[in-house]
Amino acid sequence: MGLIKANAIVGQSGGPTAAINATLCGVIRGMLEYASDCRLYGMRNGIEGCMEERMVDLTDLFTLEDGKTPDEAALNLLTHTPAAALGSCRKKLPDPNLPENEAFYEKLLGIFKKNRIETFFYIGGNDSMDTVAKLSAYTRRIGYPLTVIGVPKTIDNDLEGTDHTPGFGSAAKFVATTMQEILQDCAVYTVPAVTIVEIMGRDAGWLTASSAIGRVVNGLAPDYVYLPERSFSMDAFMEDVRAALARHPNVVIAVSEGIRFADGTPVGASVQSGGQATDVFGHSALAGAGKALEFAVKDQIGCKVRSVELNLPQRCGAHLLSAVDIEESLRVGAAAVKAADAGVSEVMMTINRASTAPYASEIGHSPVEAIANQVRRVPDDFINAEANNVTDECCRYLAPLIVGEATPDYVGGLPAFYTFD
Amino acid sequence: MGLIKANAIVGQSGGPTAAINATLCGVIRGMLEYASDCRLYGMRNGIEGCMEERMVDLTDLFTLEDGKTPDEAALNLLTHTPAAALGSCRKKLPDPNLPENEAFYEKLLGIFKKNRIETFFYIGGNDSMDTVAKLSAYTRRIGYPLTVIGVPKTIDNDLEGTDHTPGFGSAAKFVATTMQEILQDCAVYTVPAVTIVEIMGRDAGWLTASSAIGRVVNGLAPDYVYLPERSFSMDAFMEDVRAALARHPNVVIAVSEGIRFADGTPVGASVQSGGQATDVFGHSALAGAGKALEFAVKDQIGCKVRSVELNLPQRCGAHLLSAVDIEESLRVGAAAVKAADAGVSEVMMTINRASTAPYASEIGHSPVEAIANQVRRVPDDFINAEANNVTDECCRYLAPLIVGEATPDYVGGLPAFYTFD
Repeated sequence: MGLIKANAIVGQSGGPTAAINATLCGVIRGMLEYASDCRLYGMRNGIEGCMEERMVDLTDLFTLEDGKTPDEAALNLLTHTPAAALGSCRKKLPDPNLPENEAFYEKLLGIFKKNRIETFFYIGGNDSMDTVAKLSAYTRRIGYPLTVIGVPKTIDNDLEGTDHTPGFGSAAKFVATTMQEILQDCAVYTVPAVTIVEIMGRDAGWLTASSAIGRVVNGLAPDYVYLPERSFSMDAFMEDVRAALARHPNVVIAVSEGIRFADGTPVGASVQSGGQATDVFGHSALAGAGKALEFAVKDQIGCKVRSVELNLPQRCGAHLLSAVDIEESLRVGAAAVKAADAGVSEVMMTINRASTAPYASEIGHSPVEAIANQVRRVPDDFINAEANNVTDECCRYLAPLIVGEATPDYVGGLPAFYTFD
Repeated sequence: MGLIKANAIVGQSGGPTAAINATLCGVIRGMLEYASDCRLYGMRNGIEGCMEERMVDLTDLFTLEDGKTPDEAALNLLTHTPAAALGSCRKKLPDPNLPENEAFYEKLLGIFKKNRIETFFYIGGNDSMDTVAKLSAYTRRIGYPLTVIGVPKTIDNDLEGTDHTPGFGSAAKFVATTMQEILQDCAVYTVPAVTIVEIMGRDAGWLTASSAIGRVVNGLAPDYVYLPERSFSMDAFMEDVRAALARHPNVVIAVSEGIRFADGTPVGASVQSGGQATDVFGHSALAGAGKALEFAVKDQIGCKVRSVELNLPQRCGAHLLSAVDIEESLRVGAAAVKAADAGVSEVMMTINRASTAPYASEIGHSPVEAIANQVRRVPDDFINAEANNVTDECCRYLAPLIVGEATPDYVGGLPAFYTFD
């Protein structure tokens, strides 16, 4: 304990989530709790801005005049702000073991030395953990005393080493709630109709699986759920749709954006696979998986059909945050500082599930090298044998993560957000 | 007063909104207040189900055992339920003046007589007011004592005779809030990027205009807003986008689904206008306006670009209801019963704005014949001279309609909804 003796810096990286700023708040609160004599800087646009010395003094911005007391109003605003408030980047660090990259790392360490920075927190997903691992490897090799800690976030929930990721619960709540509303919307007419909802997730189907949570909450869920963890068969899909239409007029289906045929071809590209493969400008990626299936159903079944791509709102829907997710996102940020202060380094913080019913979790950490660049997929026992839905066990596992509403403050009917600058 | 002496029936018709059930609650409450000795029936699937005598006894369902005291729990649940809980239809009534349609109307009136129904409430948009007008004309001609009252609802806000429509405020709040969140999401990277948000509205741009409300609330709004009230010029659009990219890297644009070129061609169809006009199955309506503009920007400017279609969630987002809208939706429903009880008929209920700041409204009514099948568009002084944005006056007009949050109850992290059956 008491091992943070110099300044610290924190950055956000990768795709936005609605909870990544809650984790940032956790780091700010953690610094005030465990190392209030040291300053916390924030990189603008992650490591990219850090290299340009674009940073803000978070200790100044989020404390009252004494520089020690948390500014609760500002922290509360930041907690409920979606997307990376410090800005993000998608920069991949160069290989720290190649001599030609020495200049890059020397420049970065020069900035750290100048600002007396000896602790580095990076909030992000798979790619960001790669940054944490590389920076760890470099500083260890040259003997610079940098404590490096990765703090997870991703709506995809696809990080190894943690039960789930901060940001996932809020995205899952948005998806599960929107699915409930779409089910209501689709139920109003008696004309047979198929509605296909496309949900984010290229390689892992966690978020799409969340569309079915209602099944164990109130019995309402889509007819089918197709994940990228299983090969997609158009024939089996059409059989499924026909069977559902025989049961009731309003069929609702959830698909991951990343579903692929057995040969690896994305379903989303299939609409454009023929001679008319492109639009008038010659682009090939005209439609996503939902749109492709919409046209396939129109062609092969001929009933009313539409597709809905949930798109950006599912990852930035700050008006519908999971209280469990926001609370854990805050905790994991503060725990990162506590770990650094105890001498832990080269790890990613993790959320470990202690119990599902009642739900309880503990914060831990795991060596970052084993986590970076891995993808954690939905396990076999969470997907049914027909590969067209998730199991009840999957729904029960996901359900606690969307519980509770962390509501932002509204001003003039709109949620109020924190902005730097 | 006291003129409702027999039973009444209420139906929902046309596209779903998140507030149409609040209006239904208003009618139920109104009946309990003004005509508690009479029963209120609900048509399942509007006039279509009515013709098949598919109806429920709302007086039974929404009162306690005495049949007079409102069941507040059930009514509260229904108020926050999106989409037409009774079911909807898109049936257009036949011409009541043609002899060949006599059988249709005789059958309908037979059902009314059998159930002692002498008051008819129909909650809907333009097409539904056509039903109200035709039923009025027929019953007046044959002398059946039917009081017929239309109650407006539509997210499109395009009904004549009323300042705005129930359901619009909640959809506008969803659009305005989601735009705030998308603006946050788009601000995280430094790479130049254009994001095009497609919003519902084929002929009237009210909902798209709502995406700009933030401008008068917190200063945050999209760079441009294109409405169907103005011809769309691709050249002017590209000039606008280039000018915005010169100002800042993250350009966000709102477009109505219904924008058209000067020759009347929908922008959404333009992607498919060439030889490769169709997908591999031969369908022509592959993409909407947002997608079409996404490809046009990619082709002509070449920067990172994406499109987001808000789609169904904007009309069924019950988790984000405007308190002003829900309160007015309830009031307009109850006022419809009060009007019927006072002998008013052949009208559509209206919301009349008494004041914008502070906001105040009164419920009135207007002859339905002048309203049916009309479209009220965004007026000239709400659109700027360049036809690429709305005016501040427009934003100030819209802003009061999204104020306040009417939050549903959550169970297990999901909003709880009322369902018949």
